Amino acid sequence: MRCEVVAVGTELLLGQIVDTNSSWIGEQLALAGIDSHFQTKVGDNLDRMTAAFEQALDRSDAVIVCGGLGPTPDDITRDAIAAVMGAELRRDDAVAERIRAMFYRRDRQMPANNLQQADVPVGARVMDVQPGTAPGLICPVRRAGADKVIYAVPGVPWEMQRMVGECVLPDLQARAGPRQVIRSRTLRTWGHSESGLAELLAPEMRRLDATGEATIAFLASGMEGLKVRITAKAPDDAAAAAVLSAVESRARAVIGEAVFGADDDTMESVVLALLRSAGLTLGLAESVTGGLIAARLTEVPGASDVLRGAVVPYDRPLKTRVLGAPDVNAVSSEMALAMAAGAGRVLGADVGLSTTGAAGPDSHEGAEPGTVWIGLHLDGAGEATRVRFNMARTMVRQLGTITALNLLRTRLLARAG
Amino acid sequence: MRCEVVAVGTELLLGQIVDTNSSWIGEQLALAGIDSHFQTKVGDNLDRMTAAFEQALDRSDAVIVCGGLGPTPDDITRDAIAAVMGAELRRDDAVAERIRAMFYRRDRQMPANNLQQADVPVGARVMDVQPGTAPGLICPVRRAGADKVIYAVPGVPWEMQRMVGECVLPDLQARAGPRQVIRSRTLRTWGHSESGLAELLAPEMRRLDATGEATIAFLASGMEGLKVRITAKAPDDAAAAAVLSAVESRARAVIGEAVFGADDDTMESVVLALLRSAGLTLGLAESVTGGLIAARLTEVPGASDVLRGAVVPYDRPLKTRVLGAPDVNAVSSEMALAMAAGAGRVLGADVGLSTTGAAGPDSHEGAEPGTVWIGLHLDGAGEATRVRFNMARTMVRQLGTITALNLLRTRLLARAG
Repeated sequence: MRCEVVAVGTELLLGQIVDTNSSWIGEQLALAGIDSHFQTKVGDNLDRMTAAFEQALDRSDAVIVCGGLGPTPDDITRDAIAAVMGAELRRDDAVAERIRAMFYRRDRQMPANNLQQADVPVGARVMDVQPGTAPGLICPVRRAGADKVIYAVPGVPWEMQRMVGECVLPDLQARAGPRQVIRSRTLRTWGHSESGLAELLAPEMRRLDATGEATIAFLASGMEGLKVRITAKAPDDAAAAAVLSAVESRARAVIGEAVFGADDDTMESVVLALLRSAGLTLGLAESVTGGLIAARLTEVPGASDVLRGAVVPYDRPLKTRVLGAPDVNAVSSEMALAMAAGAGRVLGADVGLSTTGAAGPDSHEGAEPGTVWIGLHLDGAGEATRVRFNMARTMVRQLGTITALNLLRTRLLARAG
Repeated sequence: MRCEVVAVGTELLLGQIVDTNSSWIGEQLALAGIDSHFQTKVGDNLDRMTAAFEQALDRSDAVIVCGGLGPTPDDITRDAIAAVMGAELRRDDAVAERIRAMFYRRDRQMPANNLQQADVPVGARVMDVQPGTAPGLICPVRRAGADKVIYAVPGVPWEMQRMVGECVLPDLQARAGPRQVIRSRTLRTWGHSESGLAELLAPEMRRLDATGEATIAFLASGMEGLKVRITAKAPDDAAAAAVLSAVESRARAVIGEAVFGADDDTMESVVLALLRSAGLTLGLAESVTGGLIAARLTEVPGASDVLRGAVVPYDRPLKTRVLGAPDVNAVSSEMALAMAAGAGRVLGADVGLSTTGAAGPDSHEGAEPGTVWIGLHLDGAGEATRVRFNMARTMVRQLGTITALNLLRTRLLARAG
């Protein structure tokens, strides 16, 4: 069973709205074990919509059309489906009554053009679930010598999601017969490049290519690190879970400590949890990252039990005045060490973490743009590490942020033994 | 000139990533006056990619392919384009050298598979702009009896955006020849709701509906504020500029001081410029925003001449210990005032700006989630303002950030007279 998604709306092509509906539907289809090979966006134009629907039907068994079911003149999904079916539109009195009642319950007058939403192609069925004024449609189509189907759902996300979940997916699964489930697990990593990860995982990927039991994909996500996604297809949940867990073990074995978490873990949630279980508090001194590390950590609810606070001594004399750092080059290991120790002392924290560097575009205190020194003060000892990112200012600051948090993570892991 | 967008990546179909790249490209094409009727997403599969590219070429003059240029085995956009061109892939030594140098500058070893990124279809040209390791490609194709073109750009947004802006759009416009220009101007605002703005601008929008000389659209952008986009279509730049400037004046007249800038202005760049021209320095004390204000301001190159620094006293006793605030309720006007005054004093700044509140999901010190107090210390006097956002934690922190910066902005404007 193959199903495509066609999102309708000129505003999608113009970039005025990002098409999150197709992504959501794609995820649901994958979880239901239904293959989906193409997604298309098309504007509010009858000929182009008709062409897009027909092409999707030629390639697949089913098409979910999202959007264009509203009451305004540019809402012509009904017309395009009727054209593809070779059927007429006919007003459905029961649907018209349902829409009228909906306005009545909201104490609102129904604009006359809302009744166009009750027009249904002859041969199509109206979905039982109708959260808004737009009815969803199940439209059988004979195409390329086979019985196929178009589902029409509105573009309003919460209406669409209920209809897809309660009507479209069950109908698709009934048509597909016994099915497979698709489940995935994402390993979150920091420390290897994308190509480095691919090299480490090459033997496992070759093995999976041969067995077909799972796939591995990579995704670079800036400050969120590099993601390794394992996806398994199996007859049921238990079988999929077994495959995922076996592949995950093998992947972790070769990637090693660069795996900082899985699925919804973030670098900041992992670091906070490690600090918490070690009974340690954290203080930050951020210069080149300018508050980004603090902003990330405080995004996690409950961070205050571990994070004491931060100082951003952006003006150089403050490094001395507030943090007690010596009057040395601001982009140096000495400064990073002194800032980390100062953060711990001034903020009353067990651990001090610092950044100082040159974010760019210009060099700073003799350091080339992209240079970041990270200082860590832990258990009475200090260490400083230099990294260099040959990138734009925003990326230097973001990658400096995750690299600093990752240094703290690896040291806490080593300390826990 | 018609141009389609094809986004490549199985992760897009599976809904693991939302395809924001196509939306961004669609917006740029619209602004450049280039029609775009379809956007397609296709997985990492050679046959399906080839089919998607060929179909897009059949319908349009140009195709922008986004993604699949990385170094891993599933990055096969190069192969699919070569297949469509009927050309071979050949390693480009200059590109290989460029990639090697990039790793060298980052002090990192280049994994061998990165070299596959230097494979170029014979007849294609490598783009001059190459922000990352993936080179962009300009690939001429003879199709349906006409000379057409495929542009290949990476899926990493910041790399893609530079290549599209600096290479693809100019190339497309050169091919399109004389045309109408579409120009737009974005007013950046904070202080009115989207429907409030629509009401204020309703008369002007009705006038524009009648004349057709321009359109006005609204876009809510979180911490970036609410954008009002004016778009004019005219025979040439001068005519478009005249329309934009007339509509802008009328829009500014009704929106008033809530317009904080235009186009590339950001709230942080505007606030830094106002401080600079007033000869004032700034110190921050952030609790509920946890470093976000500092992170925003330090994102602007050269912020250090105005921004002294920040203290994030996340642990309550630090508000007293570091900033000298009295022992009062942490979410109160007294605390906001004391933090602002303390920030000015401790950080040696002329102006102190503070935030304290309950970001949620739980209430904090008796304050409901979503409560944000903003304190401002300026010219020896203090003021505190309370706002409430009935939203999730992330939005509370983001909207608190822009609201605090906006308070400072309006006071600096009033002070400048």
